[in-house]
Amino acid sequence: MKLAQLIKKVKFDQRGLVPAVIQDEKTGEVLMLAYMNRRALAKTLETGKTYFWSRSRKKLWMKGEISGHTQSARQVFLDCDGDTLLIKVRQKEAACHTGFYSCFYRKMNSRTATLKVTGKKVFDSKKVYKT
Amino acid sequence: MKLAQLIKKVKFDQRGLVPAVIQDEKTGEVLMLAYMNRRALAKTLETGKTYFWSRSRKKLWMKGEISGHTQSARQVFLDCDGDTLLIKVRQKEAACHTGFYSCFYRKMNSRTATLKVTGKKVFDSKKVYKT
Repeated sequence: MKLAQLIKKVKFDQRGLVPAVIQDEKTGEVLMLAYMNRRALAKTLETGKTYFWSRSRKKLWMKGEISGHTQSARQVFLDCDGDTLLIKVRQKEAACHTGFYSCFYRKMNSRTATLKVTGKKVFDSKKVYKT
Repeated sequence: MKLAQLIKKVKFDQRGLVPAVIQDEKTGEVLMLAYMNRRALAKTLETGKTYFWSRSRKKLWMKGEISGHTQSARQVFLDCDGDTLLIKVRQKEAACHTGFYSCFYRKMNSRTATLKVTGKKVFDSKKVYKT
């Protein structure tokens, strides 16, 4: 199977995981970082939607399975060492579960030792996740 | 000390590391992913150059210390979970030790099960590292 051959080129760590940087294909904005195991990567390549391994919930999940904010994986890159992925996606609505478009919405300020919110809020997380 | 206060907001893993996505400030290109411990992050915030923890060599290193291809850290972002950094940099020459501008210079092709070189080569790694 061709997919298995391709996945063999990826070096998964001792936990069987590889970090995947998720980037907005159009704007270049870095949206999030999440982890994939072999199955998550296979499902992503097969279906064109991003799948990850949740380290806290110990399960495979499709990004957007609850919120509907799915990601279409457009291009997948492997780094020089073979141990990190970069995936360019089309993001529906927003990537972050807090409602911000990107998970990296807080900027560090060394002088004041504070985090400043710089990202844009796209949706109300309370309404979407109903928690 | 203010820097220590700021660094307390970052969740380091069991190894004492946090992944840092490095992005070209101007073009938005994702250049590499590397790991920082507390000291590497402190040095980065203090000096404005990127420092990382090498997992293979088990030492702190400044990006570009051998090649001269340093990175000026312009903005540092922390993600929603507090366990990943995004650093926007100005890159001298190229980020990848292989001579490519970005470490993500190979694109996965599911149909052919191959990696296609899509990045641009900037320097001759044999000349720079003399190995």
